[in-house]
Amino acid sequence: MSSIFTKIISGEIPSYKVAETEDFLAFLDINPNAKGHTLCIPKKEVDKLFDLDEASYTKLLQFSRKVAIAIEKAIECKRVGMTVIGLEVPHAHVHLIPLNTMDNARFIEKVKLSPEEFEAIAKAINSYL
Amino acid sequence: MSSIFTKIISGEIPSYKVAETEDFLAFLDINPNAKGHTLCIPKKEVDKLFDLDEASYTKLLQFSRKVAIAIEKAIECKRVGMTVIGLEVPHAHVHLIPLNTMDNARFIEKVKLSPEEFEAIAKAINSYL
Repeated sequence: MSSIFTKIISGEIPSYKVAETEDFLAFLDINPNAKGHTLCIPKKEVDKLFDLDEASYTKLLQFSRKVAIAIEKAIECKRVGMTVIGLEVPHAHVHLIPLNTMDNARFIEKVKLSPEEFEAIAKAINSYL
Repeated sequence: MSSIFTKIISGEIPSYKVAETEDFLAFLDINPNAKGHTLCIPKKEVDKLFDLDEASYTKLLQFSRKVAIAIEKAIECKRVGMTVIGLEVPHAHVHLIPLNTMDNARFIEKVKLSPEEFEAIAKAINSYL
């Protein structure tokens, strides 16, 4: 069965795309901890981050670094945090979260945004890539 | 001023070391979210993860991957999560946390361990490196 992320990659489920390469995709988390919360995923469906071979792992994190640096330029925050948990969706994904307080890193408080806001945020981050 | 982590690297502050290379150190978090919670740091004091140059960033995360795979073997958990926040200590550090529930990733619930338990955990993880 395809993960929800594989359906996002195929376009079966729509997303607010931030960046895309042959092997990786970055898109906004639809239930964000903070404005600008972005997910970076490999297009190949692998469950656990540390089950990726070293080369794929390294490329995913280098892709994530580029996106994080763009987020830092586009979104007002103290810094961008990076988190990989993976207990919910079995497709390795890197959370990049603009942080102002520890709570932004806790996956408890969530921010509601309109489709127009999501679109503007994705466009703003992408403009720094 | 030296960060607390620079003092750990120099040995001025003791720690439960898990792994060490010329450029990186892994040691147990003294206030762990879960048993086996480990920090990986560059010996060079740089505040933000994404301020590390690409080569140093990549090497830190490759070092962290090796440690994470050892943690998965040594500590009973569903998977090892990875988190970089950095709002408290201005010295880039990668949290590797054995996860069984989402709460293990939230930095709210903490586990108390004795010095003997910390020593045994560090030794167990190190034995898989």
